Amino acid sequence: MEQDLASLAAAVAELKGSVAATNGTFSETFYFLTIPLMVLIHAGFLAYEMGASRSKNALASGIKNILAFALIVPFFYFIGWWIYWAFPTGLSLSEGAMGISGLAYANDVALPWSQYMGPNLDDRSSGVFWGAFVLFAATTASILSGGVIERIKLTGFVVLAIVLGSFVWILAAAWGWHADGWLVTKFGYHDFGAAGVVHMIAGFFSLGVIINLGPRIGKFNADGSANNIPGHSMPMTLIGLMLIIAGFWGFLMGCVIVPGEAWSWGTEIEATIYGTPMTISGMTFNTLMGFSGGIVGAWMITRDPFWMMSGALGGIISCAAGLDLWYPPMAFAIGFIGAVAMPFVASFIEKRGIDDAVGAFAVHGFLGMWGLLAVGIAAQGYPALFGEDVIETSFMGQLVGVVVMGALGFVPGYVISWLLKVTGQLRVPKEAELLGLDAVKVPASAYPEAIHPSVSPAE
Amino acid sequence: MEQDLASLAAAVAELKGSVAATNGTFSETFYFLTIPLMVLIHAGFLAYEMGASRSKNALASGIKNILAFALIVPFFYFIGWWIYWAFPTGLSLSEGAMGISGLAYANDVALPWSQYMGPNLDDRSSGVFWGAFVLFAATTASILSGGVIERIKLTGFVVLAIVLGSFVWILAAAWGWHADGWLVTKFGYHDFGAAGVVHMIAGFFSLGVIINLGPRIGKFNADGSANNIPGHSMPMTLIGLMLIIAGFWGFLMGCVIVPGEAWSWGTEIEATIYGTPMTISGMTFNTLMGFSGGIVGAWMITRDPFWMMSGALGGIISCAAGLDLWYPPMAFAIGFIGAVAMPFVASFIEKRGIDDAVGAFAVHGFLGMWGLLAVGIAAQGYPALFGEDVIETSFMGQLVGVVVMGALGFVPGYVISWLLKVTGQLRVPKEAELLGLDAVKVPASAYPEAIHPSVSPAE
Amino acid sequence: MEQDLASLAAAVAELKGSVAATNGTFSETFYFLTIPLMVLIHAGFLAYEMGASRSKNALASGIKNILAFALIVPFFYFIGWWIYWAFPTGLSLSEGAMGISGLAYANDVALPWSQYMGPNLDDRSSGVFWGAFVLFAATTASILSGGVIERIKLTGFVVLAIVLGSFVWILAAAWGWHADGWLVTKFGYHDFGAAGVVHMIAGFFSLGVIINLGPRIGKFNADGSANNIPGHSMPMTLIGLMLIIAGFWGFLMGCVIVPGEAWSWGTEIEATIYGTPMTISGMTFNTLMGFSGGIVGAWMITRDPFWMMSGALGGIISCAAGLDLWYPPMAFAIGFIGAVAMPFVASFIEKRGIDDAVGAFAVHGFLGMWGLLAVGIAAQGYPALFGEDVIETSFMGQLVGVVVMGALGFVPGYVISWLLKVTGQLRVPKEAELLGLDAVKVPASAYPEAIHPSVSPAE
Repeated sequence: MEQDLASLAAAVAELKGSVAATNGTFSETFYFLTIPLMVLIHAGFLAYEMGASRSKNALASGIKNILAFALIVPFFYFIGWWIYWAFPTGLSLSEGAMGISGLAYANDVALPWSQYMGPNLDDRSSGVFWGAFVLFAATTASILSGGVIERIKLTGFVVLAIVLGSFVWILAAAWGWHADGWLVTKFGYHDFGAAGVVHMIAGFFSLGVIINLGPRIGKFNADGSANNIPGHSMPMTLIGLMLIIAGFWGFLMGCVIVPGEAWSWGTEIEATIYGTPMTISGMTFNTLMGFSGGIVGAWMITRDPFWMMSGALGGIISCAAGLDLWYPPMAFAIGFIGAVAMPFVASFIEKRGIDDAVGAFAVHGFLGMWGLLAVGIAAQGYPALFGEDVIETSFMGQLVGVVVMGALGFVPGYVISWLLKVTGQLRVPKEAELLGLDAVKVPASAYPEAIHPSVSPAE
Repeated sequence: MEQDLASLAAAVAELKGSVAATNGTFSETFYFLTIPLMVLIHAGFLAYEMGASRSKNALASGIKNILAFALIVPFFYFIGWWIYWAFPTGLSLSEGAMGISGLAYANDVALPWSQYMGPNLDDRSSGVFWGAFVLFAATTASILSGGVIERIKLTGFVVLAIVLGSFVWILAAAWGWHADGWLVTKFGYHDFGAAGVVHMIAGFFSLGVIINLGPRIGKFNADGSANNIPGHSMPMTLIGLMLIIAGFWGFLMGCVIVPGEAWSWGTEIEATIYGTPMTISGMTFNTLMGFSGGIVGAWMITRDPFWMMSGALGGIISCAAGLDLWYPPMAFAIGFIGAVAMPFVASFIEKRGIDDAVGAFAVHGFLGMWGLLAVGIAAQGYPALFGEDVIETSFMGQLVGVVVMGALGFVPGYVISWLLKVTGQLRVPKEAELLGLDAVKVPASAYPEAIHPSVSPAE
Repeated sequence: MEQDLASLAAAVAELKGSVAATNGTFSETFYFLTIPLMVLIHAGFLAYEMGASRSKNALASGIKNILAFALIVPFFYFIGWWIYWAFPTGLSLSEGAMGISGLAYANDVALPWSQYMGPNLDDRSSGVFWGAFVLFAATTASILSGGVIERIKLTGFVVLAIVLGSFVWILAAAWGWHADGWLVTKFGYHDFGAAGVVHMIAGFFSLGVIINLGPRIGKFNADGSANNIPGHSMPMTLIGLMLIIAGFWGFLMGCVIVPGEAWSWGTEIEATIYGTPMTISGMTFNTLMGFSGGIVGAWMITRDPFWMMSGALGGIISCAAGLDLWYPPMAFAIGFIGAVAMPFVASFIEKRGIDDAVGAFAVHGFLGMWGLLAVGIAAQGYPALFGEDVIETSFMGQLVGVVVMGALGFVPGYVISWLLKVTGQLRVPKEAELLGLDAVKVPASAYPEAIHPSVSPAE
């Protein structure tokens, strides 16, 4: 019988290994799958921005977008990932309470010569986490990319995209989207779906840039009134926006910590990045309801398909900070309210002479802010962190987060674009803008033959 | 030794928890992933329908499609999901043999104030199941959407889409796509991939609507002969159809019940929604073979890329009811036969003065029917339900299903569109149709500058 | 106590079943998901090729692509899959050391009447593996498809696509992408991500075809200098290429063997198809870095968005053979170098009077080759197979692989296209080419009404 017991113990040990292997492969695959889904966001942004440009600028808009994605990857490898782990507690490089931050920790896990920064048979998470973060980073650059089309210089854009994607947003993530982040540990800041650290940061950064960049020629009349400068293909823009919606689900998967691994928060169910328990199932209700509220709200105000699809994004962004928490009809309402306000915000900044070509500030900056405040209003009192007796979310905490995110986005965007402006690297010459960026800068034609009626078919 | 035994028992208990956690997270993720894939169906439908419209109506077609998706979400949340659980046994609200239907059950799981209808740490399935069903619902509306382009009024369309997506198809699903459904328990109806409850319902509903809606101006000549009214961008339509094919795999995942959960049918392998065992692997063989047969069949008859890609969809739809059962070369044959018949069906209804702009009835209505009958012909005798000594599939059972699905789709489509017609809410005024819906209804332009030849590039 | 032990043993046995079920469903789903992702590759190729064609040929390019995909499915079912299992040891049909090859094995698992070639409740892997391979096969045909647009005859193309997709590449895979493959067992050939067996084969096959096919009318002037023949929609091409990038992640998943199944190589972590351990996480680092290096390299040389996105593909292809092995900054460098060379290769073959319309040889043939050699240079000494004391990768082994892949691709492509040429089945008549293939062959119009400026909207 002793023998039976020993063999049973061996069987249990072996089984334990199998269970760990299954959970490990599943977890790795989970984050891996966020990447192709988020590449769809980029296919979507590419279509969206080219369609939203006049045909004389379509390829220049595309190049900008593709190049930003490409350049963020190595910058995020060499620097961005290290920033995320080094700075949660502020700028002091000290270690936080959870022990997953600070100089020593960052040097251990995120320096380019760390064993975790490449293939390693003992590590099945770093690459896929890093990859998901890279795609988040590229998303911030794509948000910027939309607002500045048709007149930004490629050099200037690339600098701004790298700063935003590899430094600014990831510092925001260290502060507000990390269990050791000071906004979380000190103020109970809750931002499940990155409404602040991705959307607000990118939206406010864009606003800072657009102010220095100035409006497109012809956008404003002498009396200050604005003209509509429609892009050359609204169908392309709409299809692109729906592809972004498909990819958004991958973005949201990237906001979830699955259970059962050494780095997991829980043993049984999913958690937010702060370690508070949540379920993918609950998030699904709220994402669809926010999406729906956003479209319906934008439709009621504008009847315009561009704003309807922007409202689809905007509805999800409005709910993003609390997708783990909302009662679904509430998510509908929050998305609806956000989307109703969105066109007025766009119009408000346009009236101030700011030419945000696709409403990047209204959709991402403003609605990210709205979503954070909505958590402060409707979800205060929820624990903000893993564990017992932890700090709770509060309106004040969310408000502090909003101020920090707004400033952390806006100031670098404004300052760096101002520096680029005074050094002549921000905006293309007037002649290039009038002729079209493609003709001046791109050794290829968007539509070399026009689209003429097809010859009658054979039958 | 007693101690050893106790510690081993504890280890086993802990392990059991780990196994349950892994299976639970995987299962939840499985259904979650159906959603971004099915959003691709909607990106595809958007491209498909805008491309199939003349450019003067492109955005109106898109708006229709986006808005229907958005409005179905809350209606399905508040009502549709409850219908699915309440009505399987007919209209009596009684509980079925499996105990997962009827008034009490539906009130428990699907009323908007139920604990299952929002984030709930003890429930990792309701949201993702509901989400997958919402996307199915939106698909029914998109099927309708294609047939009625270029002349339907938005109000009328929205009413019809909500009725179809939140009431009609889900009642059909309760009856024929639920283990307590009376078509299943009484007639052994087998419809694994929703050939009847999604495709036939939507196709026959569309037919009912199109009859009342009437043909587009210019579709028929005075002598009754038909003109072809091609859409403005066949490439956009074809790309859209291929995106629908990508998304179709998510739709089919949503037809599978994975094992190992409290709500699962089995402990070891996947099951259909009826609880009969099947494998995703087997379904994969048949899906690809049906897809292939559909393209080849349509190509041989038409040589037309629109029908080839419709045949790709149609081939899968033809096999859908029995994707769990076919021998793969048989799936090829069934898809092939369906796709060969498809253009004749389209032509048949066109000759009767019915203007189904994209062949919605031929592809979805007719081929869904063909698929159900094919199961009756070639797969009779398979058990139709979970358990021992259960009812079997039969030709008669499938035929009953076909009659019910046809009637349940057609009658509401016909009656409601007739009511909309007599109240003047079904069709846009003649002037609007001639000028183009975009010019009259949409505060945006599809192609504001035409696509003119690009200026010669710099190099 | 004996009773306790027995009940514990029973609990362990039951648990073992649960673990196996979870791992099995996950593994099956893992490969299943490669398929919708790879269908995105085909949606991407469809957009890419139609956009790269002049509008007079757009639909003909699309038809070609759709039909090749469709026809490869049954050919791969009836023959291709059997070839993969029959021929690893060469052409002798003998069994290899791993015991998973040769005539008997192939007859057992891959004949169309085998129990593994259809739904089978005891087999949850064959269909999804087969499906992933079918999508690989269809990808080879799509690579060919791009180079031959605007003048190939559909009959000829279809024959070539079937030969490439159902015979040639799968023989290459048997030899070099199978643990019993003679290139692997005798030469230590390492080709994790199918750089040779998919990309080189398809690129060299295409080159052979294009030589016989000849250049498009107007491509070369009397003095031998080349003209650029741009496609009608560069935006469509770019969006298509980004969709291919999204789908590429599914392709790479299909190169991984997950652990824990009877057919797995390992019990704990993933392996290459050769059984050498690797992680999805490590592959993710390298895929993103290679992608980035490719775009940046192509941008620096060309500034052309078409080459930038081709460089995105090309960067991943350059790294593909060693995605399991690279240090990520090395992957960036390999992708960068490949993409820098790529336009020169394209230009080199163009100077020889070869009209490879989209650079299929440069991107797939040349960069696949570069990737294989890079493994020989930088990763020599890694074990090439599962187990102890196994053969190692080496420069010579990779070089042998390159020669074999080049010849195995080029010779059939050249010979069969030559046969088609002499029998008049390779190229359309001159008149058809001048008028446009769509007008002559396709009973549908790409853009029947041109894209004219939209009428002013209502508001």
